[in-house]
Amino acid sequence: MYLWGSHLDGLEDFTHEFNKSIDFDKILFEEDIIGSLAHVKMLSEVGIITENEEKIISCELQNILDEIKERKLEINLKEEDIHSFVENELTKRVGVVGKKLHTARSRNDQCALDLRLYSKKSLEKIKIKLLELIETIIDLAEKNIYTIMPGFTHMQHAQVTTFAHYILSYAQMLCRDLNRLKDTFNRLDENPLGSCALVTTSFNIDRFMTSKLLGFKKPTENSMDSVSDRDYILEILFNNSVIMTHLSRLCEELIYFSSSEYNFVKFSDKFSTGSSIMPQKKNPDMAELIRGKSGRCYGDLFTLFTILKGTPLSYNKDFQEDKEPLFDSVKTVFNSLKIMKGILDTIYINKEKMRSSAEKGFLNATDLADYLVLKGIAFREAYSVVGQIVNYSIEKNLKLEDISLKKYKEFHKIFENDLYDFINIEKSLENRNVYGGPAKDAVNIQINNLKNFINDIK
Amino acid sequence: MYLWGSHLDGLEDFTHEFNKSIDFDKILFEEDIIGSLAHVKMLSEVGIITENEEKIISCELQNILDEIKERKLEINLKEEDIHSFVENELTKRVGVVGKKLHTARSRNDQCALDLRLYSKKSLEKIKIKLLELIETIIDLAEKNIYTIMPGFTHMQHAQVTTFAHYILSYAQMLCRDLNRLKDTFNRLDENPLGSCALVTTSFNIDRFMTSKLLGFKKPTENSMDSVSDRDYILEILFNNSVIMTHLSRLCEELIYFSSSEYNFVKFSDKFSTGSSIMPQKKNPDMAELIRGKSGRCYGDLFTLFTILKGTPLSYNKDFQEDKEPLFDSVKTVFNSLKIMKGILDTIYINKEKMRSSAEKGFLNATDLADYLVLKGIAFREAYSVVGQIVNYSIEKNLKLEDISLKKYKEFHKIFENDLYDFINIEKSLENRNVYGGPAKDAVNIQINNLKNFINDIK
Amino acid sequence: MYLWGSHLDGLEDFTHEFNKSIDFDKILFEEDIIGSLAHVKMLSEVGIITENEEKIISCELQNILDEIKERKLEINLKEEDIHSFVENELTKRVGVVGKKLHTARSRNDQCALDLRLYSKKSLEKIKIKLLELIETIIDLAEKNIYTIMPGFTHMQHAQVTTFAHYILSYAQMLCRDLNRLKDTFNRLDENPLGSCALVTTSFNIDRFMTSKLLGFKKPTENSMDSVSDRDYILEILFNNSVIMTHLSRLCEELIYFSSSEYNFVKFSDKFSTGSSIMPQKKNPDMAELIRGKSGRCYGDLFTLFTILKGTPLSYNKDFQEDKEPLFDSVKTVFNSLKIMKGILDTIYINKEKMRSSAEKGFLNATDLADYLVLKGIAFREAYSVVGQIVNYSIEKNLKLEDISLKKYKEFHKIFENDLYDFINIEKSLENRNVYGGPAKDAVNIQINNLKNFINDIK
Amino acid sequence: MYLWGSHLDGLEDFTHEFNKSIDFDKILFEEDIIGSLAHVKMLSEVGIITENEEKIISCELQNILDEIKERKLEINLKEEDIHSFVENELTKRVGVVGKKLHTARSRNDQCALDLRLYSKKSLEKIKIKLLELIETIIDLAEKNIYTIMPGFTHMQHAQVTTFAHYILSYAQMLCRDLNRLKDTFNRLDENPLGSCALVTTSFNIDRFMTSKLLGFKKPTENSMDSVSDRDYILEILFNNSVIMTHLSRLCEELIYFSSSEYNFVKFSDKFSTGSSIMPQKKNPDMAELIRGKSGRCYGDLFTLFTILKGTPLSYNKDFQEDKEPLFDSVKTVFNSLKIMKGILDTIYINKEKMRSSAEKGFLNATDLADYLVLKGIAFREAYSVVGQIVNYSIEKNLKLEDISLKKYKEFHKIFENDLYDFINIEKSLENRNVYGGPAKDAVNIQINNLKNFINDIK
Repeated sequence: MYLWGSHLDGLEDFTHEFNKSIDFDKILFEEDIIGSLAHVKMLSEVGIITENEEKIISCELQNILDEIKERKLEINLKEEDIHSFVENELTKRVGVVGKKLHTARSRNDQCALDLRLYSKKSLEKIKIKLLELIETIIDLAEKNIYTIMPGFTHMQHAQVTTFAHYILSYAQMLCRDLNRLKDTFNRLDENPLGSCALVTTSFNIDRFMTSKLLGFKKPTENSMDSVSDRDYILEILFNNSVIMTHLSRLCEELIYFSSSEYNFVKFSDKFSTGSSIMPQKKNPDMAELIRGKSGRCYGDLFTLFTILKGTPLSYNKDFQEDKEPLFDSVKTVFNSLKIMKGILDTIYINKEKMRSSAEKGFLNATDLADYLVLKGIAFREAYSVVGQIVNYSIEKNLKLEDISLKKYKEFHKIFENDLYDFINIEKSLENRNVYGGPAKDAVNIQINNLKNFINDIK
Repeated sequence: MYLWGSHLDGLEDFTHEFNKSIDFDKILFEEDIIGSLAHVKMLSEVGIITENEEKIISCELQNILDEIKERKLEINLKEEDIHSFVENELTKRVGVVGKKLHTARSRNDQCALDLRLYSKKSLEKIKIKLLELIETIIDLAEKNIYTIMPGFTHMQHAQVTTFAHYILSYAQMLCRDLNRLKDTFNRLDENPLGSCALVTTSFNIDRFMTSKLLGFKKPTENSMDSVSDRDYILEILFNNSVIMTHLSRLCEELIYFSSSEYNFVKFSDKFSTGSSIMPQKKNPDMAELIRGKSGRCYGDLFTLFTILKGTPLSYNKDFQEDKEPLFDSVKTVFNSLKIMKGILDTIYINKEKMRSSAEKGFLNATDLADYLVLKGIAFREAYSVVGQIVNYSIEKNLKLEDISLKKYKEFHKIFENDLYDFINIEKSLENRNVYGGPAKDAVNIQINNLKNFINDIK
Repeated sequence: MYLWGSHLDGLEDFTHEFNKSIDFDKILFEEDIIGSLAHVKMLSEVGIITENEEKIISCELQNILDEIKERKLEINLKEEDIHSFVENELTKRVGVVGKKLHTARSRNDQCALDLRLYSKKSLEKIKIKLLELIETIIDLAEKNIYTIMPGFTHMQHAQVTTFAHYILSYAQMLCRDLNRLKDTFNRLDENPLGSCALVTTSFNIDRFMTSKLLGFKKPTENSMDSVSDRDYILEILFNNSVIMTHLSRLCEELIYFSSSEYNFVKFSDKFSTGSSIMPQKKNPDMAELIRGKSGRCYGDLFTLFTILKGTPLSYNKDFQEDKEPLFDSVKTVFNSLKIMKGILDTIYINKEKMRSSAEKGFLNATDLADYLVLKGIAFREAYSVVGQIVNYSIEKNLKLEDISLKKYKEFHKIFENDLYDFINIEKSLENRNVYGGPAKDAVNIQINNLKNFINDIK
Repeated sequence: MYLWGSHLDGLEDFTHEFNKSIDFDKILFEEDIIGSLAHVKMLSEVGIITENEEKIISCELQNILDEIKERKLEINLKEEDIHSFVENELTKRVGVVGKKLHTARSRNDQCALDLRLYSKKSLEKIKIKLLELIETIIDLAEKNIYTIMPGFTHMQHAQVTTFAHYILSYAQMLCRDLNRLKDTFNRLDENPLGSCALVTTSFNIDRFMTSKLLGFKKPTENSMDSVSDRDYILEILFNNSVIMTHLSRLCEELIYFSSSEYNFVKFSDKFSTGSSIMPQKKNPDMAELIRGKSGRCYGDLFTLFTILKGTPLSYNKDFQEDKEPLFDSVKTVFNSLKIMKGILDTIYINKEKMRSSAEKGFLNATDLADYLVLKGIAFREAYSVVGQIVNYSIEKNLKLEDISLKKYKEFHKIFENDLYDFINIEKSLENRNVYGGPAKDAVNIQINNLKNFINDIK
């Protein structure tokens, strides 16, 4: 039964199927009923309906909510949308008084309200998962402050670092993700209810009252904008896409780091699968899925941008297409964060392999150049001298620490015996005690700052 | 029960949920079983299994297929994927011989095969809908060869045309869509089965035999490419996006044309809905949904591009994420084409309003310039003279046909009485009898060519 | 001359062309030099170079900056990038001391620094344009508080509103745009300099000092993240895409509103163009360009998402591709905002046409239903009664105000003479005096709030 | 000087800057002039202008073309677009007869023509680069038919293959790219000239004649579609995106394969760069740039989709935004293909490292299972047995070939001495002589088929 259209002929089955949204907007049942409860409370307070009518409606709405939650009442998927289902179910139960529920309201503001309530709830859920993942990373970092590994640029050995320093870079990304999420939450925390179809209503409603009842900071400022605004969904889809970008990068690295060739880490069996045909295989499927699911979140974002582009005010049916991308993106990010935490909680760090790999690739060549600079050589000249030494080493298949001082002096007379200490891998690390760097103290500052950040945001 | 991993510990519930694909790949059950039937037939023909084993397996696979179709057998959504479900169900029924099904095959080529079979079927289904929509447009055009309407550029009145000529432009777009679809079909019509995990198999299988059995032109050329290639899905997602672009443009126009202000067309009640609060509303929801769903198809395409970008050979689990976009895009386009046809089949064309609108906006100004050119004035000069006449007309609130010859002669002495005939709206139309133009004969050529095209492609 | 690679053979011309970025990163010359000035200042303060060396370098860097600004020095487009150009130019001028500039720094953090400085500057510029556009909208609203127009949903006449209320909805969108911009600015306001290639440096640099010199809140937290982080560019590209989405919607509406059929507004000649062939044409090219340029900004955003997806830490050359989308997006948004303001500053509002259009389409049908509700009828029943009245009116070609009371009573006996006052268009508007609504007082509140918002954010 | 608008006031500087396209459409000068030459030839043949007028115009157009090519004539970037520049230059030179050039034509069809001519030329250029890259791959394959390497799925060692088989998979992708390109070429090979603004013209022009003169198969079918159609640009942008997807995958692999840990390949110095700070670095910048540039091509595609979505017929100024993405995408793909070929032409294949890597990771586990199947064990059982053997081997740190027959018999009594031959790495390879497989003969078939394909398509 439609909430509209006694003046229209009505839809045929196939068109009804195409038009209806209940198959996906059913998950908004709680938001929808909570919104209606606040709405009728306000209607009664300002005298548009009687206190008694409010009681009857509220009581039965609460029953419907409880029954759905307890799976005693099944949502009828033949209805047009969740709003129709709830209103029709209510009227079926309480009779004509149910027909008063929709006074001074439209599906346009009702739908906008449901989506904002859902969005706030989802942001809270994702926030918790982000916090948990950051905590896992902090744990991992604390256990690996001395785990030496090669630092890469261009996937080539660059300079020495530690696994702690490396993995903490992801904590920074997730902190920004949390920050963005908080900003989005604050921005969307306004109540669209009372905007009605597009120009509010001739009834003397109190939008500040419903805002308070529903936990919003305040009502939205312009009713036409309110039923038309989907900025907050764009923001969530964007924030989620950035989260997935970060996870995709981490997964990419772990996948390679778990290959035979790198062998830096080993995934737990709990986060690996096998092959249907190759009995030896242990595949990092979970990490690959997360990496792949970034595409899904980007697609969801682009879907909504396309929908909104060039669409006139105020509400258009095109906007019904906002829900599936939102629900899909939220679910994807929530699950991916949860799985990512599981992966990191159980991953094996092969410290020996990382350490031995760090000895290759002239990670200390920059230190050698810095050594020369400290002795007074201009950096560009130092760089050039070390370039020649590296070439020599490759040719002779030597490490920098294997070259004799005599040989060094052929490249530049200023070299002295203290160079060997300076290019020692542990020393090189210890020297990088700059704010943000990999040396133990610098890493501990990062960890402390992270802990403070988490406590503040919680 | 997994098809892999006796050597692994196995997944926990949540991870299994994240990993499994049966919730969506279940729709491939028919393709999966058909593929297996061809596979065992070939295994038996080349002697890898016995004829008797083949009989047992084939017979039971056919039973499983029939039972799923008749809804006697429910697909177990706890399995990892549809491949596991079918193989496990088979083995449950026929015992150890079922364990031979997967000989000389991997899920990698099996999955690639299922997707190609699904793709071919989907292309066929979309093709039919495209053809039906083109036929509807031809009908509409044939009924509106004399329905004069203003032609727009920049949404401003430009020159006169007919509804037939206008709507036939969409038939051209759909013909290109059909053409692209055909090219995609031809390109993907190669059989990946036998590629196994990535390097074929040590068994002496016959890939040409399975190709023939499954209706493919030939086997794919390189096994590593075969399990990794998703080009054909990209192509389908792209083709679908272009189709939706075309429909979005048509819907955009119909939505505006159905507004109070244009009032060129009226949607049937069967393709309109009302408002939950405004009793007078009749909204073009179906057209808006189609317009909006373009976003969905674009999103699906971008999702897959993202998944594939920078992913190494050969199979990666990321690729599991290819299915939902494909299924979603195919369903969206199929339904949108069907609804679009319904809209056009039942739309009311307001010929009077179009005709009266065509009289405004100086649609014949170009004709007036052409008139001067035919009298020997260079086009740029003629353009300039008519520009002044138009300015005069706007100022005086006149149409071009309302200006006296005397006045015309003030603008250019070459004007004569025959100008009024030349700028007459019907005459203007008749004069545009160039190939591709709006004059009756030119439109009939377009209609005939379309009919021939349809017959050829069917 | 490369800043690298004495140990490498070097690139051929075509490869050098493919590799170099100076053609676009040249616009960063000021940021690059300002960054270097702060860097050498700090190097000297902490004793890595002498005060005298700092003087020489700084003085000449300042000269180079001035000369480029005054177009006395041309940037050499044969160099690899702007960093190479500046450093090579410096060394050419001051000799060996110039080779000390790059001590304790890498192009990785240098490039990250330049981009952050550029980003901050760009955000400031866009902020000013956003504020100016909001002010233009406020002006327009103040002049049109009594300009009645039809409010649309689904592009169908819905309920009555005013042009002030309508156009203020766009001010709300732009306020959110400003808010997002502010959040982005705050989040990116951290200094990456000193992160060097990826793990800081063995020199005892002071990152807090350079932060202060360059106007950053603080140094970034993790050096590996710092050279790899492009979140802030994603945010800018996203914010810009949302701005363009808003502008695309406004332009869409203005384009249609300026058509012959709507005739609600007229673009100034200063923001219109003509046709090369149709002398009467006046096309809303500027508005169309803005609408189209949304695509460009979306494309820029997805370009960067794609680049980042699955890319390992820390710096990769892929990231060089971040600049062109950023520069393009910033320029597009800046210009579009400027043009949009020009359009609105000069647009003609056809009040008469809007008013007469508002009388059509039963904009007061909801009021009629509300009337019944106020008399005690349940809303759904009232809705149904009015639906029948609307059908009757369409059939008889009447407005609601034209129906006799006697006839009204046939539909429901509760109707009385006061109904005509209630459905009067001005009265209907006045009645919508809810927070956020179109009534005069409600609109004035919106305007005041906007003015306060602007003053706060300036 | 505008080609329009004697009736309009004209644009101010900033608006003119925003509006004009000559900064990028200038590259169409040759297409524009060639199109005009065909147009005037036809105008003269059908008697709209005189033979003498045609001579004067053609001769001077040819002069203008030659002078631009020889850089004697500079394109004036103050003009609105290339069309205006050419027409104004012509009229400046030949006087009033130049004003006849635009007779029976509009910028709408002129622009559509220029873009189609440009597209055809670009497709030809990309085709050549694709062919050259395929040839390079064939060369590389022919040299590496016996170069054993591990085949990967999920970046884990899967089964043995050769570098020839591996690299040939990319040739298959490029062949599909060529095929798509050919289809696009055929589909776009229709002449839009004569469509004029949107409804052809009142002049008696001959569109078949201009088609022949310009090398098109035939004129387009519907004039309104012709000025509005951008499908072919979408197709080119899509095809290019797929090409870049393929290259991004290859580059991803080569980047990892060139890391210290894999060490499978080494980039030539000619395609590597260094670090500004780390003297030892040799970075695969070119491969990274290509990988990153996939984002650019995806962005270009989605830019155009966004522009077209929901845009009404026929021409809208939004479409001016089609050019930059097209030009950018074509240039990107052309250069990337050229660089990719250079990379492969000069890359060093480390056969020893690949061979030794292939010995790890139980690449022959599937062979062992197949061995059991050949002895009559059902595949799933064989798989399970081998799974246990692999687990045992990992525990004991053994390869499968190191386990004694006695031990094997403990796992399954059916094992015999011939198993060692069967799981030998060369034997395993030789056994995969299925169509599309890695065995020598199978690879030679692939190479021959590729050579035939190339000869056919050239």
